[in-house]
Amino acid sequence: MSTSPLFDGEAELRDRTLATRIGGPMSESPATARTDEPTMLDEETGPDLPVSQGERLRARFGRRFSPGEVIFREGEEGTNAFLLEEGRVRLIKRVRGVERSLMVLKPGDLFGESALLTGALRSSTAIALTAGLALSLDQATLQNLLERNPVVASRLVKQLVRRLRDAEDQIEIMMLSDTQSKVVSALLKLAQNHMESTLNGSISFSISPMELSTRVGLDVDTVKRVVQELRDGQYIRVSEERLEIPDIDALRRLFALLGVKDEIRGEPDDSV
Amino acid sequence: MSTSPLFDGEAELRDRTLATRIGGPMSESPATARTDEPTMLDEETGPDLPVSQGERLRARFGRRFSPGEVIFREGEEGTNAFLLEEGRVRLIKRVRGVERSLMVLKPGDLFGESALLTGALRSSTAIALTAGLALSLDQATLQNLLERNPVVASRLVKQLVRRLRDAEDQIEIMMLSDTQSKVVSALLKLAQNHMESTLNGSISFSISPMELSTRVGLDVDTVKRVVQELRDGQYIRVSEERLEIPDIDALRRLFALLGVKDEIRGEPDDSV
Repeated sequence: MSTSPLFDGEAELRDRTLATRIGGPMSESPATARTDEPTMLDEETGPDLPVSQGERLRARFGRRFSPGEVIFREGEEGTNAFLLEEGRVRLIKRVRGVERSLMVLKPGDLFGESALLTGALRSSTAIALTAGLALSLDQATLQNLLERNPVVASRLVKQLVRRLRDAEDQIEIMMLSDTQSKVVSALLKLAQNHMESTLNGSISFSISPMELSTRVGLDVDTVKRVVQELRDGQYIRVSEERLEIPDIDALRRLFALLGVKDEIRGEPDDSV
Repeated sequence: MSTSPLFDGEAELRDRTLATRIGGPMSESPATARTDEPTMLDEETGPDLPVSQGERLRARFGRRFSPGEVIFREGEEGTNAFLLEEGRVRLIKRVRGVERSLMVLKPGDLFGESALLTGALRSSTAIALTAGLALSLDQATLQNLLERNPVVASRLVKQLVRRLRDAEDQIEIMMLSDTQSKVVSALLKLAQNHMESTLNGSISFSISPMELSTRVGLDVDTVKRVVQELRDGQYIRVSEERLEIPDIDALRRLFALLGVKDEIRGEPDDSV
């Protein structure tokens, strides 16, 4: 089966990541790969937050990490949430002995936020993929930050709302019985969330098979097979870096049809 | 199979709810069943928010609703999020023609929050179960509320963190292959989240079969059957209103054992 570079390159990326994680130095080098991306604090240097305040927060609550370093470990008791300021961090989780990658965080992302709930244990392990910096905030400090800085409060609320929406979408997708319905439903939801970028009725977004696989709760090979079937049926196009839906209504009709088929057969089905 | 009153009473509750929803008057009666529960605003009447401010917010942004009234409908474009102040609201969702109840909201709960994301459509329908009052907040108003009232900001963040944690737990549970593992895993997570109430190593919490069924993505009858098996095995006790885990470690060992069995057989299995 032929797949695009996008859908082939992922395994390679995973291998590289794994190498970084396992082989990476555990030294406490403060060298960080400072990106140009704005973070929760950079964007704050307006009238309501002087530059020095962001710097002060970094100086006081900043925790630097090196590639491969474990920031926190699944099952530990957590007291601090983290706001990523620089670098990349991966969240992983052991499910019955198998290590699953949950997501890669970028500057601006909140993680370890369950520590804000009393008595919660870490539900995943956070490992630095690159050198970086995170603000480490306990309940009182976060409360303080929310009080002094409503812009941060507003961004946190929006980020949590977005993640909640994504999680609820995923639950809905996982409740569908057949693999095609799951993948098509995930694509429709992604399209929905990218409605801003609609142009001539065509919608495109960037997603890897790994990410799609995580979203639908199926293995990568199954996802690749369904994606290929959808390409063959011209419901989607896959270019170097993006997945394109030329006609969203055609995909919606396909989804409805899969549902009817599902009801008639009364059981999970695996062929288009 | 004998089940406890807790596990029998649910169907009745659902019927009553349905009757309320379908048969309820659609009048605009302002009479509300004011509960004694504190809401997001009631708790605010400290030094940082005078009583009058809560009243002003209610007067300005309050939306009263009657039993059976649809507050918003799935698929509509949403501009406002709601903070429930009084009464009960049910969220429901159509999944391929079948109406599913997602949850019942109580005072203090945020709902319709996806409207805070640009271009998001309502992912569920909100129907009033009782007369009540909600604050209807658009993006600008919510931003304003966050800025003026850090206590509200902090509560919103915690509520979103809790819901996100619950959603992520549910995704993890749904990824397990066999029904026992799903139910046991859900019980372990609930126990984890109730660690505060531990007494003599025994943990108890209140949960209905309907709620458990929603959490694990299985039908209520399957959940009841597994719960009965766990009771027979003395892993759990079910009393009038609560489910009790007398020995959490025994339940953990059972979960590990189910995992081993799963690996050996290599396929979903349905008998203890």
